[in-house]
Amino acid sequence: MRPWPRDVIALGGDYNPEQWPREVWDEDVALMQRAGVTFVSLGIFSWSWLEPKDGSFEFDWLDDILGRLHRGGIAVDLATGTASPPAWFSLAHPEALPVDREGHRMWPGSRQAWCPSSTVFTRHATRLAQEMATRYHDHPALALWHVSNEYGCHNTPCYCDTCAHAFREWLLRRYRDLEALNEAWGTAFWSQRYVDWDHVLPPRLTPTFANPTQVLDYQRFQSDALLAQYLAERDVLHSLSPGVPVTTNFMTQTGFRRLDYHRWAPEQDVVSTDHYLVTRHHDVAAELSFAGDLTRGLARGRPWMLMEHSTSAVNWQPVNPAKGAGQLVRDSLTHVAHGADTIGFFQWRASRAGSEKYHSAMVPHAGADTEVFRQVCRLGQIAARLGELVGSTVQADVALLWDYEASWTVAGPAVPSNRVDYADVALQVHGALRDLGVAADVVHPGADLTAYRLVVVPTLQLVRNEHAAAIHAAAEAGAHVLVTYLSGIVDEHDHIRLGGYPGAFRELLGVRVEEFRPLLEGQSRALDDSSRALLWTEDLDTTTATPVVRYADTGRPALTRNDIGAGSAWYLSYLPERDQLAALVASLLDLAKVAPPVAAPSGVELVRRARDERTWLFAINHTDQPQELPVTGHDLVADTAVTGVLALAPGAVAVVREA
Amino acid sequence: MRPWPRDVIALGGDYNPEQWPREVWDEDVALMQRAGVTFVSLGIFSWSWLEPKDGSFEFDWLDDILGRLHRGGIAVDLATGTASPPAWFSLAHPEALPVDREGHRMWPGSRQAWCPSSTVFTRHATRLAQEMATRYHDHPALALWHVSNEYGCHNTPCYCDTCAHAFREWLLRRYRDLEALNEAWGTAFWSQRYVDWDHVLPPRLTPTFANPTQVLDYQRFQSDALLAQYLAERDVLHSLSPGVPVTTNFMTQTGFRRLDYHRWAPEQDVVSTDHYLVTRHHDVAAELSFAGDLTRGLARGRPWMLMEHSTSAVNWQPVNPAKGAGQLVRDSLTHVAHGADTIGFFQWRASRAGSEKYHSAMVPHAGADTEVFRQVCRLGQIAARLGELVGSTVQADVALLWDYEASWTVAGPAVPSNRVDYADVALQVHGALRDLGVAADVVHPGADLTAYRLVVVPTLQLVRNEHAAAIHAAAEAGAHVLVTYLSGIVDEHDHIRLGGYPGAFRELLGVRVEEFRPLLEGQSRALDDSSRALLWTEDLDTTTATPVVRYADTGRPALTRNDIGAGSAWYLSYLPERDQLAALVASLLDLAKVAPPVAAPSGVELVRRARDERTWLFAINHTDQPQELPVTGHDLVADTAVTGVLALAPGAVAVVREA
Amino acid sequence: MRPWPRDVIALGGDYNPEQWPREVWDEDVALMQRAGVTFVSLGIFSWSWLEPKDGSFEFDWLDDILGRLHRGGIAVDLATGTASPPAWFSLAHPEALPVDREGHRMWPGSRQAWCPSSTVFTRHATRLAQEMATRYHDHPALALWHVSNEYGCHNTPCYCDTCAHAFREWLLRRYRDLEALNEAWGTAFWSQRYVDWDHVLPPRLTPTFANPTQVLDYQRFQSDALLAQYLAERDVLHSLSPGVPVTTNFMTQTGFRRLDYHRWAPEQDVVSTDHYLVTRHHDVAAELSFAGDLTRGLARGRPWMLMEHSTSAVNWQPVNPAKGAGQLVRDSLTHVAHGADTIGFFQWRASRAGSEKYHSAMVPHAGADTEVFRQVCRLGQIAARLGELVGSTVQADVALLWDYEASWTVAGPAVPSNRVDYADVALQVHGALRDLGVAADVVHPGADLTAYRLVVVPTLQLVRNEHAAAIHAAAEAGAHVLVTYLSGIVDEHDHIRLGGYPGAFRELLGVRVEEFRPLLEGQSRALDDSSRALLWTEDLDTTTATPVVRYADTGRPALTRNDIGAGSAWYLSYLPERDQLAALVASLLDLAKVAPPVAAPSGVELVRRARDERTWLFAINHTDQPQELPVTGHDLVADTAVTGVLALAPGAVAVVREA
Repeated sequence: MRPWPRDVIALGGDYNPEQWPREVWDEDVALMQRAGVTFVSLGIFSWSWLEPKDGSFEFDWLDDILGRLHRGGIAVDLATGTASPPAWFSLAHPEALPVDREGHRMWPGSRQAWCPSSTVFTRHATRLAQEMATRYHDHPALALWHVSNEYGCHNTPCYCDTCAHAFREWLLRRYRDLEALNEAWGTAFWSQRYVDWDHVLPPRLTPTFANPTQVLDYQRFQSDALLAQYLAERDVLHSLSPGVPVTTNFMTQTGFRRLDYHRWAPEQDVVSTDHYLVTRHHDVAAELSFAGDLTRGLARGRPWMLMEHSTSAVNWQPVNPAKGAGQLVRDSLTHVAHGADTIGFFQWRASRAGSEKYHSAMVPHAGADTEVFRQVCRLGQIAARLGELVGSTVQADVALLWDYEASWTVAGPAVPSNRVDYADVALQVHGALRDLGVAADVVHPGADLTAYRLVVVPTLQLVRNEHAAAIHAAAEAGAHVLVTYLSGIVDEHDHIRLGGYPGAFRELLGVRVEEFRPLLEGQSRALDDSSRALLWTEDLDTTTATPVVRYADTGRPALTRNDIGAGSAWYLSYLPERDQLAALVASLLDLAKVAPPVAAPSGVELVRRARDERTWLFAINHTDQPQELPVTGHDLVADTAVTGVLALAPGAVAVVREA
Repeated sequence: MRPWPRDVIALGGDYNPEQWPREVWDEDVALMQRAGVTFVSLGIFSWSWLEPKDGSFEFDWLDDILGRLHRGGIAVDLATGTASPPAWFSLAHPEALPVDREGHRMWPGSRQAWCPSSTVFTRHATRLAQEMATRYHDHPALALWHVSNEYGCHNTPCYCDTCAHAFREWLLRRYRDLEALNEAWGTAFWSQRYVDWDHVLPPRLTPTFANPTQVLDYQRFQSDALLAQYLAERDVLHSLSPGVPVTTNFMTQTGFRRLDYHRWAPEQDVVSTDHYLVTRHHDVAAELSFAGDLTRGLARGRPWMLMEHSTSAVNWQPVNPAKGAGQLVRDSLTHVAHGADTIGFFQWRASRAGSEKYHSAMVPHAGADTEVFRQVCRLGQIAARLGELVGSTVQADVALLWDYEASWTVAGPAVPSNRVDYADVALQVHGALRDLGVAADVVHPGADLTAYRLVVVPTLQLVRNEHAAAIHAAAEAGAHVLVTYLSGIVDEHDHIRLGGYPGAFRELLGVRVEEFRPLLEGQSRALDDSSRALLWTEDLDTTTATPVVRYADTGRPALTRNDIGAGSAWYLSYLPERDQLAALVASLLDLAKVAPPVAAPSGVELVRRARDERTWLFAINHTDQPQELPVTGHDLVADTAVTGVLALAPGAVAVVREA
Repeated sequence: MRPWPRDVIALGGDYNPEQWPREVWDEDVALMQRAGVTFVSLGIFSWSWLEPKDGSFEFDWLDDILGRLHRGGIAVDLATGTASPPAWFSLAHPEALPVDREGHRMWPGSRQAWCPSSTVFTRHATRLAQEMATRYHDHPALALWHVSNEYGCHNTPCYCDTCAHAFREWLLRRYRDLEALNEAWGTAFWSQRYVDWDHVLPPRLTPTFANPTQVLDYQRFQSDALLAQYLAERDVLHSLSPGVPVTTNFMTQTGFRRLDYHRWAPEQDVVSTDHYLVTRHHDVAAELSFAGDLTRGLARGRPWMLMEHSTSAVNWQPVNPAKGAGQLVRDSLTHVAHGADTIGFFQWRASRAGSEKYHSAMVPHAGADTEVFRQVCRLGQIAARLGELVGSTVQADVALLWDYEASWTVAGPAVPSNRVDYADVALQVHGALRDLGVAADVVHPGADLTAYRLVVVPTLQLVRNEHAAAIHAAAEAGAHVLVTYLSGIVDEHDHIRLGGYPGAFRELLGVRVEEFRPLLEGQSRALDDSSRALLWTEDLDTTTATPVVRYADTGRPALTRNDIGAGSAWYLSYLPERDQLAALVASLLDLAKVAPPVAAPSGVELVRRARDERTWLFAINHTDQPQELPVTGHDLVADTAVTGVLALAPGAVAVVREA
């Protein structure tokens, strides 16, 4: 085996040679070398080629391409190949196909058609992983193991009988006795009390809203069931291929929240993720930065791998825009700014056929004589120069809390407003920080908060007692805390914290809320600072807090400040307009004495990575005007010296090794 | 047993003590007394607590709370507890679970997961009712029996095999022989002729539009099947608990039309209903008034019970707004204005857990020290003062016809325009009457119309011959009749009445329509009175009628008047703009010599309740300005004398015992 | 038997006497004679009346009505009656009911509830066809056989096990060995490789996008399966009723594309179609003209039959507008302009009951004393005068290519933009031609193109090599060719043609496209001719072509011209605004030296039909102003001489036998 490339920012992508004749393989390796590609991910969807029949394995083609890649100097992130079982598996084991909420069993013919709880799937997947590990554990091209692919992208939640059985076992471990489950699920409501474990089911199709705690537990269970599938393969690899790190690629786009990655991340030898731009976001580039910080949070600050993103358009949205000039490089380096040491793409060569043939790639349909491939080559040159910062980390004084469980209770069923999206205010606060040049860590509520000067708690509807206490302690110790609407409402069982909202944060914030006033589509509500509250408002009274902004109609507090210990705790009971939120964030940064690394105009993203005594400043101009920054050092992107002033064209990015 | 509270307007709500520990029970009774609560509905969703296992009953907890309530002076509306069967029932009898049109069998886990035709459900439900009646028929707290809950809210239509079998039996009773069914259903169309009863099915998933008469009969059948379930329990209660009245709570919101309540109402010892505000209505308060009149119509003019409404937000809409200042009292008293002698809420204490934990309650999550609870207490004081009008009735000179069967044919399948909602014009006419201070009865087309001076017939697409004749007779006898578009079109089998629209009303109205001209979204059509026709228009000619308004483009009549006998009959072939409809209603009131009880500014709702020689005037200011009315008496809301002028702040309500 | 009426444009409609008592039959024949009806289609949905029980036939009623019609001089288009099997068939053979993608089996109760692959259906349908042919092959009223009705309107795609089996047989015939299928379907992607024919399935519900080539082949297979059902009946009729032509009614509305009619048309003795106006089209009348040209293309230029259209509103859209004044005649004659020699309606007499009772008819619910029936009578008089042009054909210099397979790949799954509809640009180009008075043939890409001076290739995403070559050859030979965006992209297996878009047309057009840039809803892109690109744009470079219009932002070519041989090839890489597209079409007509039959103002549709030496000019004024044309002859519509100037009121149509 070989080590993961660490003298450069690793550059590469998914490589699917089985889609092409061997003459293309030769061209592939040559083009990879030309582009500065240093790794590929191999075999992710190769199960039907590796094991065309049950128990009958064919490795010759893989031996061949592994040899070519090794000779070409390309490190291999080798998949266990278990992302999608072949048709023969599904037809032999139809009970391993996933079932939707209405009871429809899925069929093979696309991908990931397997049930998260299926033990027959586990048996076959680990057998393939074992074959792979046995054969390739000491292959000189092998640098990393890649287990499955984007767990849960399509096959969760599954509602089949196997899942029902596994869910009961999971619940038995969680609650031990049925009365504890009855209490946790609140089955006294709507005559749902259970007297027999065998009656407990997944939240399948029902005449109306399912029990919310049942739904919450089912999401936990499904995440855990998939995690167990990962662990089964990982353990095989650790055992048969010691010393080779193992990962599976997360999907940390903010819109994907089916898995509780905070439970998955500790089980990765290195955290890797996929990230794609989704047109429905208000600010697509800001979402990318957020996702980068979230991934770094999952990696507990250590460098992480961007396993997949796209050179240009994807193909799975209703409309799939191509990237603009410079965006390929800018997006890639933005990920690096936020902690990535690897830049991967799906995929190396655009497919001729199949469901993703309209997905962009490093080598487009039009071939190597294309703008996209030229930009890939440019990126390869930059990635080589950025090798010096591999292993460096990002330092941030601001923490923004993110919790998959809280996102699940926000989504219902039967909530005050289904217009509230868990990421609404989080993305906006983060975007405001970015525009001010301030880096933030996106971390779990259970993370160590002691080092942060500003802690943002957006829409943390579900919060555990110990996490609420830690947030309180951070404020006592001097942090400034911003809590937003719909936080602190329920405990881990989705039970309301009585006595007035925001429940767990009532004392911290010095406020008490009697009623929510969510707004209808098109509604807004005037505030006494001449701005308007959007989406959500509340009937709030202060206890120990001081009102900062009030609702114009009722005169009741809308934004409050509560001095506590050495810090302060602010409550934002509404979604502000973008400018007002930015102003609030700016004033909290002042209060917390948090400043950007260098003075910068609004809209220039600044992130500093550091290792030992050295620092590198990433500066990304998101505005449509040229901008200047007071920086001295060497810009590794342009490969030029910067003496005093860094000039950034619109859309440009610089990585300055600071003097 | 005790009588229903009649010295006050009864105030109370659903009470679910099984969700709370016993120490809360003590606080509950004390707070009820503080609030002036005089009744609670108990045990509605308690089946799984009353019968935790098949045939094994646990009444101790119910004995306990019944005793506490009795000692606290609270009357009990005791449920049979059969609204939702426990999980053990559903798992033992999966065939009793409802099935949707596509054939998906529902699962337990929410509520009301039982098939309307299930006899195994009937057997278990009547057994529980029998146990309850046997144990509690002479309990001193018992004042009323509450059977099930909101029949049909979620479990109809069901398309299972049990329903298929029961449907065939229902059809056999209706048609006696198959040729009659073939004729009624028009099976000569599309090769649908039946030669064997066993081939007749519910209107399950089909390649395209189902047979419309089959769909109509299925809706009738489902309503009857659920009614039979009600009657089975009611008969047990009547037999074992003689003298105690029995009811089930209807849902007379205008948007719920799955049951033909005109067939249900005669089987109630007292009519009760639930009413919730739904944001999609143009005028939410006007819909409330309409629903009150509809409920009174079902009760044939007698006082009725508002079993449930909400103190503030509900939780089952996409977005759930809280009520505004004063609205809790105003909405409650508006129901009383329209004939309610009972004010009930869902629910007493807001749940901590479960699917309705975000539903408002009399005691909010924030506790008794809240504006909501203070308003509940204020309502309690008012309700006590209003005791003197208990038993009084509303008198109205205007009838507005409402028919669930007609609403079913409007909804299709395969109709001229699915933009037409049955309630469109009915709500608008009723709202115009309300704004003019004129009360209306909302009654079935089969009601006695002889006492009305104005009869409104909105969108009565299906009308039976005898009802059309009665409307004609009313006009002959001197009533003024307003018929709107899409009325009189089909008979009870959904067969077109040939010879020209509006079919059954052609002679009454003196018009003949050759074609409908429904309008597309965004379209309107100019009229010669400078207003515009919305939603629907027609190609109309007069025979004996006189045109009043014409379509500007064709010059053909749009609104017509036909003098007939001592009265007149008007045809409105389009949906007018709001102001034009209000003007038409005003002119018809003039013609019919119908005036409000006292002269009042527009937007003040006026309803007079009377008993013996006494009268009470309800005045509700729906405008955003203070208003004055010429009234003398005693305002029971403010508990002050009114001498000559009643001043009403915006949103205020007064109930004046008239001098 | 009698010949099809050829001394007049045949006028008639679907006739369903089984819905009416015999006294109505007498009135029917009398009214038909009054209206000038010369044919009816009989028995289309009569299976349950013809064969009320399995194997038991009842023909008396049909004998009766056939006799009446014959005595009345009405020719009969006699259906085999197999459009919808009776309930007894479906209940006895549930496996013959269609199944949807999720696996829901349909139920009877509407129409066409049979599986395209069902052999038990074939057996029963051909038995009925055989009974009908045996009994009526020499009936004097019989003029034409009408097989089934609107094949595929509701019952395709079906995903049942019978279809799965038949699909595998179809695939075996197509690919012969499994490796060819694996290659064609690109199963190397997503681990979809098949090693056993039994594992190959219809594209049923899957966790995500199904394999696109599987989906494409499934559409081909379903069309072929239904065609085989047609052929089975047709062969029976040809065998037992020689000399009587056989047809089935297509649905050539541009929105219906489930069947590949280009494979069906050669199997018709005469091509017939149904056409209904659909409100969602931008220009409803233009879509009618397009559909007429498409039908003529299917008929290879020969006259065709309009089997069904509507006198006024249909009933199956969300909102169903009635036709305006004069539209009944204008729409009918527009079909004749485009090659119809028969004008049929659904249906003769509006139904009283059933799913289409709100569908307009020749005799409305209001009876014969109606504007609709008067217009039918007027049409009858015109149709009689038009008898002289029966058999004449339309000549056009412009070809517009239309291919059902290409429409399938445009629709996905997983395409660059689901906002692209196959007909978008085709309808717009055709509408521009119509407004300029220029006729076009809408033909298959495999049609002989040698006679055309202008060839339009709109959105031909899938194109076969031989078709691309023929288009190239046409340009070489002097035709001018306009190819639009998203053409030439994939081959018949839906494999990308590598090397740059537009793949198959790269050389013809002298351009190379690296990337698509589809636009989001609400987006547009400026062009350097001051107009804007809508819906779709591309990153294009010229090789041998000359830019004509450029994208304003990038300066790259957007519309190009490539001179080739004696002709030219234009590439339009975006959807233009309406006016710009019209201007482009006008300039291409100039270039190609194609002119309207006579000089005409914009918005007057002109089509010339010719036979032997005689010509008839159809002129239809689609503007809202009176128009004049330089024409001399005799207008058969008004039955007046035209000397030099034809004056056309707004909405008027003239058919001038040219001098």
